[in-house]
Amino acid sequence: MPYAIPDYVLPTINRQVLLTARPDGIPRPGHFTIVEAQIPAPGEEQILVRNIYLSVDPAQRGWCSAEANYSAPVALGAPMRGLAVGVVVQSRVGGFSEGDFVYGFFGWQDYAAVGPQAVLHRADDNLPLDAFGSLLGINGITAYLALTRLGRPEPGDTLVVSTGAGSVGSFVGQIGRHLGCRTVAVAGGPAKAARCLERFGYDAAIDYHDDDIGSALAVAAEDGVDIYYDNTGGPILDAVLRQMAVAGRIVQCGTASIASWTPAPTGPRNEREILTRRLVWSGFVIFDHIGRYAQAASDMARLWQEGKVLYDTDLATGIEAAPGAIARLYAGDNAGKLLVYIG
Amino acid sequence: MPYAIPDYVLPTINRQVLLTARPDGIPRPGHFTIVEAQIPAPGEEQILVRNIYLSVDPAQRGWCSAEANYSAPVALGAPMRGLAVGVVVQSRVGGFSEGDFVYGFFGWQDYAAVGPQAVLHRADDNLPLDAFGSLLGINGITAYLALTRLGRPEPGDTLVVSTGAGSVGSFVGQIGRHLGCRTVAVAGGPAKAARCLERFGYDAAIDYHDDDIGSALAVAAEDGVDIYYDNTGGPILDAVLRQMAVAGRIVQCGTASIASWTPAPTGPRNEREILTRRLVWSGFVIFDHIGRYAQAASDMARLWQEGKVLYDTDLATGIEAAPGAIARLYAGDNAGKLLVYIG
Repeated sequence: MPYAIPDYVLPTINRQVLLTARPDGIPRPGHFTIVEAQIPAPGEEQILVRNIYLSVDPAQRGWCSAEANYSAPVALGAPMRGLAVGVVVQSRVGGFSEGDFVYGFFGWQDYAAVGPQAVLHRADDNLPLDAFGSLLGINGITAYLALTRLGRPEPGDTLVVSTGAGSVGSFVGQIGRHLGCRTVAVAGGPAKAARCLERFGYDAAIDYHDDDIGSALAVAAEDGVDIYYDNTGGPILDAVLRQMAVAGRIVQCGTASIASWTPAPTGPRNEREILTRRLVWSGFVIFDHIGRYAQAASDMARLWQEGKVLYDTDLATGIEAAPGAIARLYAGDNAGKLLVYIG
Repeated sequence: MPYAIPDYVLPTINRQVLLTARPDGIPRPGHFTIVEAQIPAPGEEQILVRNIYLSVDPAQRGWCSAEANYSAPVALGAPMRGLAVGVVVQSRVGGFSEGDFVYGFFGWQDYAAVGPQAVLHRADDNLPLDAFGSLLGINGITAYLALTRLGRPEPGDTLVVSTGAGSVGSFVGQIGRHLGCRTVAVAGGPAKAARCLERFGYDAAIDYHDDDIGSALAVAAEDGVDIYYDNTGGPILDAVLRQMAVAGRIVQCGTASIASWTPAPTGPRNEREILTRRLVWSGFVIFDHIGRYAQAASDMARLWQEGKVLYDTDLATGIEAAPGAIARLYAGDNAGKLLVYIG
């Protein structure tokens, strides 16, 4: 157990962030209500987890929506679905003990009584505790698995990453560089573009606010793009897709925030590009790949320990910061993985 | 050598179909000129082939176009690039003998002097000669390799095929059925839809002239589409893509004829579908897979011999039929693989 628990008094109530209004687009503070509830008692084969870091993830936008998605919507009036890093304070499950640190689906609340299947990862690697919500969180593990399994990088490949400084993209760029790729970030604004170059070691960064992406890519990826790791879709995708090299791979890992995809907005047709360039365009959702989580986490921990990959955490403090946190992701004003410290 | 050469006199001139005007869309008779030339003498390491069946393939539309594609355009004034089944009448290459039957890039002409790399397949399986331009032609081998390698069919999968009665699609449906898939054809018109059911054994056929594809698929593929083998793109693709099952595969093997893809026409954006359904959308061009041709041809020959797959040839006669033949493909009035017999 690498983490000392501070000598503090555990809260005697369970503060919960409930989803109380269905957002039409990005969830904002008005869609949530913070209430106080009793601390649940763990049932048989459950653990009681005290959350320390609440994770703020783009997937939560989809979970708030009533539209069909890869997960069922969060019910109105229920605690917001969310990942968290926490500590086991009571265990009725073999293999879990009081004092174990865990990362998983514990919701936006102080306490969660959950079965072991809610735990995505045991926080027993030798890392700072916030790393389990970032480097080894779904963002870091998504970057690792989607890039290596769907992107299939080879040394010398040109890898383009949208939201190159983001909580997924920053890892994709660093892992790609470590694997011998030439890395090109697409980022919004000069500060983020500079951060891509200086902090995450990209070979080039394109500011999509200012640059024409097609022309910029013709310079930054003159032999074509072998891998496009796409976190945004939209016009950035349209531009990069037309610069793909033959046999290139597009990894679809996220899409931009729009009010509704039903009916879908229009854009340039892509089937001729897919055919003539013989592309492979794949969608990645981490929850299909849970069986590979532990190995990927071990690999990512090693990369951090060897100084190959760094991570940044943007910490908000207090559960009151949670309701506005998803919107901050989409405003793009976070620098690093957004976590809410409630410990 | 399974084929008797008829006791006829070989032509003493070389009739050639030259591309003499650049089509803006579909190549039509006015874009070609038939001329008479001398029979070429094979150089060192060349064979002289007398063509018997000229193959008519959708890829020839692209080869006629000046637009960038996966093959260089045919030069104006040059013999039309095309596949053919022929017989070696003179050989200066080890391993090829007079009387060998071959299938390859011999052009739309009576005679071709070519190196051995122009030969795609040796016609030494025990099959009717026209089968080498159909069952074992690029259409049949494309169907086999693209379906098995990119579509990755599993027993019980639902497979939808556009141009389900076509020279590629008819094989895709039959191979898929043999591999245990539920097969659904999309075809244009009641006669073709009936042919899909009666001749190629599809479980269901949707006439896109008459049926709303989305509603028809909701019935014919009620659990979603596991594999969409797309030969058309366009509105059929748009409809099927929105009925894909999670982890479904789209194989892009062809696109409809439009005047130009630059700039691309617009259609519904697909990145959200790719992501949330975790699709894999891949482009297939047979010429990337030549190393697998012989094995695939052997498998297809066996499937025909066992009665699992049948093939239909639509035979035109005389080289004069060649210039109008590509347009016939796009008019959709051929029933079976279109070959021009000039033997």
